[in-house]
Amino acid sequence: MTYTEAAAWLRGHDRYLILTHKRPDGDTIGCAAALCRGLRGLGKIAHICPGTGETHLFTPYLEGLLAPEGYEPESVVSVDIAARGLFTDAGRPWLERGIDLAIDHHPSQEFFAKETCLDAARAACGEILYDILAELGQINGETAVPLYVAVSTDTGCFQYGNTTGNTHRVAAALMETGLDVFPLNKRHFRTKTWARLQVERLIVERMHRYEGGKIAVAPVSLSLLEEAGATEEDMEDIAAFLGQMAGVETSVTLREQEDGACKISLRTSGGLNATKVCALLGGGGHAAAAGCTVPGSLERAEAAILAAIRQVEADG
Amino acid sequence: MTYTEAAAWLRGHDRYLILTHKRPDGDTIGCAAALCRGLRGLGKIAHICPGTGETHLFTPYLEGLLAPEGYEPESVVSVDIAARGLFTDAGRPWLERGIDLAIDHHPSQEFFAKETCLDAARAACGEILYDILAELGQINGETAVPLYVAVSTDTGCFQYGNTTGNTHRVAAALMETGLDVFPLNKRHFRTKTWARLQVERLIVERMHRYEGGKIAVAPVSLSLLEEAGATEEDMEDIAAFLGQMAGVETSVTLREQEDGACKISLRTSGGLNATKVCALLGGGGHAAAAGCTVPGSLERAEAAILAAIRQVEADG
Repeated sequence: MTYTEAAAWLRGHDRYLILTHKRPDGDTIGCAAALCRGLRGLGKIAHICPGTGETHLFTPYLEGLLAPEGYEPESVVSVDIAARGLFTDAGRPWLERGIDLAIDHHPSQEFFAKETCLDAARAACGEILYDILAELGQINGETAVPLYVAVSTDTGCFQYGNTTGNTHRVAAALMETGLDVFPLNKRHFRTKTWARLQVERLIVERMHRYEGGKIAVAPVSLSLLEEAGATEEDMEDIAAFLGQMAGVETSVTLREQEDGACKISLRTSGGLNATKVCALLGGGGHAAAAGCTVPGSLERAEAAILAAIRQVEADG
Repeated sequence: MTYTEAAAWLRGHDRYLILTHKRPDGDTIGCAAALCRGLRGLGKIAHICPGTGETHLFTPYLEGLLAPEGYEPESVVSVDIAARGLFTDAGRPWLERGIDLAIDHHPSQEFFAKETCLDAARAACGEILYDILAELGQINGETAVPLYVAVSTDTGCFQYGNTTGNTHRVAAALMETGLDVFPLNKRHFRTKTWARLQVERLIVERMHRYEGGKIAVAPVSLSLLEEAGATEEDMEDIAAFLGQMAGVETSVTLREQEDGACKISLRTSGGLNATKVCALLGGGGHAAAAGCTVPGSLERAEAAILAAIRQVEADG
């Protein structure tokens, strides 16, 4: 379905339920909130499926939009959900009854819905929602905030490599509605909890460096988390932390698990294939970001991943 | 002068010397490099005045663009220079001989040049250069890199409150030349030196918090810098560091000076007027960011600024 067809479809139906993906991010939450507000702006009944599982960071965008108990929709739309396995517990029954329209930007889209509006060239699903809502005349103060959250969070505030000219064009158009982006940017990109700062401090204190600083390893023990007073919510994207250090080409974050195993996250920027390294330890991922889980202590995990890195380096 | 007039003026002259401001940032360096490349693209002779004083971060953008010794220009253009006091040592003699055209975005522009192209609504001077170079047909792979550096660094990669829809429109147009922004974003926004990470670690370890965490104070002693192995280049924008902590409304960075005094930087986000606080200690600045210098130890400076904060709070 094209944007225009998706817009026409949305105009032609009513009583919407909007589904987000599990472990939600700003893109799925922002798209759901923008679509919900846009449909209401057209005079439709629209709600977001509760049980999104969002963190406190995203809660405000859902205020007043969650479906009341017993709500019976006629049209079910998923946003930013690529695969059947990514539905929430509350969303899964709707998958079984049938999704009417899936709006998505993932190349891995499984085409589980009756109709799909997919554009894999977009950095954020929010860029697709922007085009659809623009077609519906629903770009305004109500929809600009969640759309900006969607687009900015999925691109690391326009810093990641997925950012395109279109991403900036959408941001420009949203700002021209009068949107004040500074509080949103502060909230999503310029705020760290006390506990997060402690985690980063302890990582800097305890990291190991190899090969003249090209490889950096952060061993994150359960006791480090306790010392920092950190919960899982404080650990978001921690695997990227050491990769920002000047000179580091390969960064490894080791997370001690309750069951005695270690989760390893590997990030590379110097040409080393992270997937090949992690495959040697039974894991996988992308060329620049991969992971695996190995049994045993942090020390054993560190030795194992260093050996794997060296083997892949030696194989050229 | 309008953009169109500035473009016509640039087309009508030749043998350019381009001046940047002292303690240069990405905006002045990026504008100078883009203008120099754009003028050369028109077949003009153009060079940037040496002695810019740029840090290693910006050196690459000037490669091949600095004026050879003894170069005699016919037309002298300043970019992003607001005031006479902001000329470099190498630029000051040209100020005395006369600046032909000043291109700038600061409301405090002193109109020291024969002609001025000023637009104070632009977040970055790079946005003005974009319009001028677009008029000259010189937006291409050569000019897009320095223009993106100018626009992105002056807006904290589109995060600061000065960012507008136009900033994003310029970024979009630059990206559509085929520009790969990821390495630039990584260089300018996602890289920290080892020493900088040590400074941040030591600040987190040693900061003081007051009023339930609403006020945070970072005492930065000379010995802290030594312990971190940090130079002034590692300290850029350190005053913003504690302001990112969740719950902090007032952050204070104290820098011990060689002469026994302390420099105080105050950042506020909760409505406290930073200028009023610093004025009590003989300083000044903006409502949300101000500074002052007080004699004596870090402890004395901390007591003095806390007293000043409380006095302004009490005055309402």
